[in-house]
Amino acid sequence: LEQERLPVVPRLLRPLHPADQADLIERLDGDDREVLIGAMGAAFDPEVLVYLDDTVREEILAHLDEAQIARFLSVLDSDDAVDLIGELDEDEQARILQAVPAKDRVILEQGLTFPESSAGRLMQREMVVVPAHWTVGQTIDFLRTVRDLPDDFYAIYVVDPAHRPVGELVLSHLLRSKRPVRVSDIMRKDFRRVPAAMDQEEVALLFRQYGLVAAPVVADDERLLGVITVDDVVDVIDEEAEEDLMRLGGVSEIDLYGTLWDTTRSRFPWLMVNLGTAIAASLVIGLFEATIQKVVALAVLMPIVASMGGNAGTQTLTVAVRALAMRDIDTRNAMRFIAKETLAGSLNGLAFAVVMAGASVLWFGDTRIAWIIAVAMVLNLLVAGLVGTLIPLGLQRVKVDPAVASGVFLTTVTDVVGFFVFLGLATLVLL
Amino acid sequence: LEQERLPVVPRLLRPLHPADQADLIERLDGDDREVLIGAMGAAFDPEVLVYLDDTVREEILAHLDEAQIARFLSVLDSDDAVDLIGELDEDEQARILQAVPAKDRVILEQGLTFPESSAGRLMQREMVVVPAHWTVGQTIDFLRTVRDLPDDFYAIYVVDPAHRPVGELVLSHLLRSKRPVRVSDIMRKDFRRVPAAMDQEEVALLFRQYGLVAAPVVADDERLLGVITVDDVVDVIDEEAEEDLMRLGGVSEIDLYGTLWDTTRSRFPWLMVNLGTAIAASLVIGLFEATIQKVVALAVLMPIVASMGGNAGTQTLTVAVRALAMRDIDTRNAMRFIAKETLAGSLNGLAFAVVMAGASVLWFGDTRIAWIIAVAMVLNLLVAGLVGTLIPLGLQRVKVDPAVASGVFLTTVTDVVGFFVFLGLATLVLL
Repeated sequence: LEQERLPVVPRLLRPLHPADQADLIERLDGDDREVLIGAMGAAFDPEVLVYLDDTVREEILAHLDEAQIARFLSVLDSDDAVDLIGELDEDEQARILQAVPAKDRVILEQGLTFPESSAGRLMQREMVVVPAHWTVGQTIDFLRTVRDLPDDFYAIYVVDPAHRPVGELVLSHLLRSKRPVRVSDIMRKDFRRVPAAMDQEEVALLFRQYGLVAAPVVADDERLLGVITVDDVVDVIDEEAEEDLMRLGGVSEIDLYGTLWDTTRSRFPWLMVNLGTAIAASLVIGLFEATIQKVVALAVLMPIVASMGGNAGTQTLTVAVRALAMRDIDTRNAMRFIAKETLAGSLNGLAFAVVMAGASVLWFGDTRIAWIIAVAMVLNLLVAGLVGTLIPLGLQRVKVDPAVASGVFLTTVTDVVGFFVFLGLATLVLL
Repeated sequence: LEQERLPVVPRLLRPLHPADQADLIERLDGDDREVLIGAMGAAFDPEVLVYLDDTVREEILAHLDEAQIARFLSVLDSDDAVDLIGELDEDEQARILQAVPAKDRVILEQGLTFPESSAGRLMQREMVVVPAHWTVGQTIDFLRTVRDLPDDFYAIYVVDPAHRPVGELVLSHLLRSKRPVRVSDIMRKDFRRVPAAMDQEEVALLFRQYGLVAAPVVADDERLLGVITVDDVVDVIDEEAEEDLMRLGGVSEIDLYGTLWDTTRSRFPWLMVNLGTAIAASLVIGLFEATIQKVVALAVLMPIVASMGGNAGTQTLTVAVRALAMRDIDTRNAMRFIAKETLAGSLNGLAFAVVMAGASVLWFGDTRIAWIIAVAMVLNLLVAGLVGTLIPLGLQRVKVDPAVASGVFLTTVTDVVGFFVFLGLATLVLL
């Protein structure tokens, strides 16, 4: 790809959409990325940065000088610019802000005052605002003459003299109304305001719940600050879904583009936690060494009960985590959900008790072992259903993300209960 | 909530957004739902059906008669209507379509000809189309006079005489241009067309990749059929994310609103598969019964190696499944990804080998067991990294969704390898 033919690179890349250029850059390895961006030179489109994976973007920013980054920031939409500079450390932020023109600097600095992943960070400042007493004709003339407006916008906000939004003007309604009509007569009054401090996850739920395309962001005193558009929300929805998936899978990030060393290190803590729970389960087994010594068949069968409990519990947990993320469980239906999952676990426990009892008789020809595994199976799947709901609901109540820690707790419980009931019963019955 | 005060229900519910009414209905249990909908009577807003969970919606549709459903279908947007009727079985569809006015019926019947979860099903037919020779003024006059236009729209499509889209007119550009300007001068020509047969997952990727708000859907002959808007795509993104999460968790649906019996049954098949893999692992243990009989400490330690392998593999798998869903892995970087994950697994294997060797010496005071568990740990985590990438990539290649089956295959491999290497080494070294 990269030889002495570097001068043609800009000509090849320019016609591509920035998102496609970003994909291309991501696929290259580190050195090639530098070469490519060097070859692009002034033809490099700052928009490309918006579409890059975080890891890759950081790497590229590290190679750019402050003047270049400052120039990029002025070109980008305010939300994208804040996003970009928000990822740098504070020293770098300060130095780059020095190089940014004063007007843009104020907007960036204001943007950075909002907490990360809040609506204030997500919004863009560029928007179109009109007073309520204007007519459709005045609004259209204003749009036709004023130069400094955003490229694309989906709604116009109608504000009162204190700059508080009082209505939302959908562009299609504006276009379909005659010039003398007042905007206050065609604006929507039941639009949703987003407080600047609202968490982005809540914002995404709001957009999703009401099928919104844009929503105004307001300050504590109800003044209009900016607008959040659905394309930013799509990114949030992706991020949040990815986060749940990752947390359930025990990874801290989808580090496809990270280095070997970063990947190894990021996986370690979770495995360490898992080692703790595995050792806890082993300690339970250790209690029954004498029993296992006498009936080795128990060692052969014991992982089955534990594994079935872990899987049944994971099923319940998955449903619970998703339902909690979608705000589909509240105090009113929580009890019903817990009862249903516990019963469903018990019923499947009964079914597999029969299956495993039959298999054990065939395998070891011992009806006592068959009874033991049957009882252990029912109990462990009952516990799996109960704990698979209680753990995420409990974590949610103490404000811990249920996705992040549920899995470990769950398998610890199902392993410990599975081994303890199975080997405990065996000790009582067989010895 | 529901007593003899039913007559006030419509008055209480009407001011709520349909999405909120749907939430309220979902939270009730079956009988109360019927009572509530009965109480709403003619005041029931068909839009509510659009926001309901599938399970609940089916239940409600079962209680409505065909004339009522037919009336609802005429009121809804074409995409929502097709979605609704598409869920019924063919007999019902035919009977209801009889009751729908001829004009709507044709649109519904056409919609149903597109495969489920294709762009054709997702699009709405209501859209605004203008010829390329029109001016901005003509377009605005057209919008102001024609009655039968969609409520909200985000883009207008410019078509040639064969009704093929040649440009996309963003409303904000239309508003900002003077009346004599030709639409062909301000339309975007590099917009993305969506073929009607495209899978909804691909559509979602397209919207996400380019931050689209609307896209035209075209037939095989390039004729414009309809338009997909971003709010429909948000639902698809949610659905697809939910699907990946569920499949990795081994559940067939987020059956929060399903009955106990349906939930129990839907969980059974996956647990059956898991029982098969647990038995496979047990058979491996069974091979080494004699070894365990002599050194019971092995029975205590063996789940640790298997569990660490399972968890390390799940981490890799999670990254791989997500990256494949986002189309971030292709043949060019697959080898690099496999190598990195295998090495990361091995490095963490080395770290935990040291930890567990130390723990074993402290616990059992036996350096030979410490060596055995150390070697087994490294090997199993190496295999976990390798198999955690190869399984999803392999499934993707044979066109099976990597999310659905990867987990079982993976834990089967890590359990079997974990037990086999650990107990096998022990048999060689200790006996």
